[in-house]
Amino acid sequence: MPAGFKAAGVACGIKGREKNDLALIYSETDTAAAGAFTENRLPAAPVRLSRKVMAGGRCRAVIINSGSANACTGVEGYADAERMAGLTAEALKIDPGLVAVCSTGRIGDPLPMDKIEGGIAALAEIIRTGGNGAAPEAIMTTDTGPKQTAVEFEEEGITARIRGMAKGAGMIYPRMRVEGLSHATMLAFIITDVEAEAETLREALSRSLEQSFNRITVDGDTSTNDTVILMANGRSGVKAGVRFREALDCLTRELARMIVADGEGATRFIEIEVRSAQSREDARVAAAAVANSNLLKCAFYGESPNWGRMLAALGYSGAEIEEGKVAVFLDEVEIIRDGLLREVPEDIITGKLKESSWKFMIDLGLGEGNDFYYTCDLTPEYVEINKR
Amino acid sequence: MPAGFKAAGVACGIKGREKNDLALIYSETDTAAAGAFTENRLPAAPVRLSRKVMAGGRCRAVIINSGSANACTGVEGYADAERMAGLTAEALKIDPGLVAVCSTGRIGDPLPMDKIEGGIAALAEIIRTGGNGAAPEAIMTTDTGPKQTAVEFEEEGITARIRGMAKGAGMIYPRMRVEGLSHATMLAFIITDVEAEAETLREALSRSLEQSFNRITVDGDTSTNDTVILMANGRSGVKAGVRFREALDCLTRELARMIVADGEGATRFIEIEVRSAQSREDARVAAAAVANSNLLKCAFYGESPNWGRMLAALGYSGAEIEEGKVAVFLDEVEIIRDGLLREVPEDIITGKLKESSWKFMIDLGLGEGNDFYYTCDLTPEYVEINKR
Repeated sequence: MPAGFKAAGVACGIKGREKNDLALIYSETDTAAAGAFTENRLPAAPVRLSRKVMAGGRCRAVIINSGSANACTGVEGYADAERMAGLTAEALKIDPGLVAVCSTGRIGDPLPMDKIEGGIAALAEIIRTGGNGAAPEAIMTTDTGPKQTAVEFEEEGITARIRGMAKGAGMIYPRMRVEGLSHATMLAFIITDVEAEAETLREALSRSLEQSFNRITVDGDTSTNDTVILMANGRSGVKAGVRFREALDCLTRELARMIVADGEGATRFIEIEVRSAQSREDARVAAAAVANSNLLKCAFYGESPNWGRMLAALGYSGAEIEEGKVAVFLDEVEIIRDGLLREVPEDIITGKLKESSWKFMIDLGLGEGNDFYYTCDLTPEYVEINKR
Repeated sequence: MPAGFKAAGVACGIKGREKNDLALIYSETDTAAAGAFTENRLPAAPVRLSRKVMAGGRCRAVIINSGSANACTGVEGYADAERMAGLTAEALKIDPGLVAVCSTGRIGDPLPMDKIEGGIAALAEIIRTGGNGAAPEAIMTTDTGPKQTAVEFEEEGITARIRGMAKGAGMIYPRMRVEGLSHATMLAFIITDVEAEAETLREALSRSLEQSFNRITVDGDTSTNDTVILMANGRSGVKAGVRFREALDCLTRELARMIVADGEGATRFIEIEVRSAQSREDARVAAAAVANSNLLKCAFYGESPNWGRMLAALGYSGAEIEEGKVAVFLDEVEIIRDGLLREVPEDIITGKLKESSWKFMIDLGLGEGNDFYYTCDLTPEYVEINKR
């Protein structure tokens, strides 16, 4: 844990008595902070509130509930988000304007504020006695397990730390923008003891998103609640420079990978890399079309080499494409050359497709644009999870 | 059957010995013709060939195989499509430049030309003796049944006829454009005995697409092979005017409905109508986002009133939207008002959701733009069908 931060999780009853569903991240001192939020035009109440907090560039605490998204809940929903911030500030004796709020779960239902009120009081008590390890679990919805990771780096002999946790398994296709510079619910919280201005954090987060959370999809649905919050308290004395940005990129990419690997019902983790597109944006849209193709994702599930579906997706992606120039590799095996399917010995391809993680490298042969997406397969289990 | 047209289907062995897989539509005399083709940037060989035919505005025959898409098959694929046209022209003693070609099935495999050659000879023989009723079945892939419909209208006491057949169950999200004016595989063939210039047919087809085939989705994947061909031989003596366009619109909409109702694995047919958007394009993209949301389509399958997912889809659609202005009706039941979920008595909603066909009317309360999409639910069966 980076110095000066504490976190805790409790079960307050939103998801039923036994499940952790309310989390608190707390910094003993003021932090510089940056936040990135969904571009969905119906952002949840907590997103609207936290945008304001992050526009100020400072934060002391983040209160997060799972089990209910507080999205599409109107004026009362916003009042509930404000009350969550107010109760947290009161319990921790801090400025309510420095408390960010996040929610995740079903859209459209009002928050059970009585349960949350009791939960906040319990969390503040646990924080006072040092916190507990339940926060990553308390932010889960359909996730099969908690997601957290940490990175350290040294500068002039001093160690700085970054720690992050995330959730997200369904409604995952984030398209977020950093507040102050300029979709799942996925939530990620990153705390560090480096020293930085809010503006530096915003720039670092904005760049980091474009190689992590904004390059993942489970189902192509962009949430009303996606949020990433980055808080830096300066305790290490290490200034946020290149090494910090590299460490941050490494951490966000790992968390993004964890979200997709735990996608709802997923049995496969797949990286789609597109190279030599006419532009980076062309590479991005081509990778996104392939990563979001339902037909191809069903074939991934069935371990079926139905690569024609990949060509179809590239064709409708909107990217510039020339049929005779397309080459595709599944790991080191060339499966498409000059736009034509190659005959690959069945045992080689069958062996590959049994693995739990694949990487496709698609070369469009047109230019210098490179980009990627992380995706997973589409399974009957995904449908069963989401038929409610 | 409109006067002067004949059709036939045979089993030539592409899909296995017992299944009809090759169809021929033939006109005894020259027809004016218009074709609409996929905007996928990797169009199949038969699409490229048929575009040329339709650019000429005349057609005598269409040869169609199912079981293999002849897409992403390179130079040899195009030669195969040309050979299909040539063999058909030879057997029917017509100009090969007046033969359109369509294929549907798996992408990337070469066509079994020996089987097709035998099939074309058999078809020509059947056509010579009057044709048979097997064409609608011979163009099927994962369709559970043939799709055809007919319309008649009278003008000054004379009856004119329009007949159409279509296929399509998966890879259905057509975005087509009429060749000469300017995306499943879905195929549709429309024959009529009205009298018309090719340009008139192109305009009528172009307009008709935008209220039928270009407003359907099963899985959001746009095929390399989508094709609609309209042929008019003038035999009725009725000129193609307003009544023809109305009849055509009625027929294309019915065929479009049939394709979605038979979507792969589908148990529900759903119409998404968007009204009062800021523009027609906003209404279209809003309806398309709702119609393509995997999460919502899983809820449709589960008969679950998870309407918050609809709001999320509207929010990421790209259409202008104001949360407090959104109203949604499921048939006559108001389920969302002022952007908030309404409490609807459970028996009313449960009764509705048991039905096989639903209509949502989404009112954005912003302007004059109206549009719609037809869609279906996403089921475990869809995944099972497409895991190959």
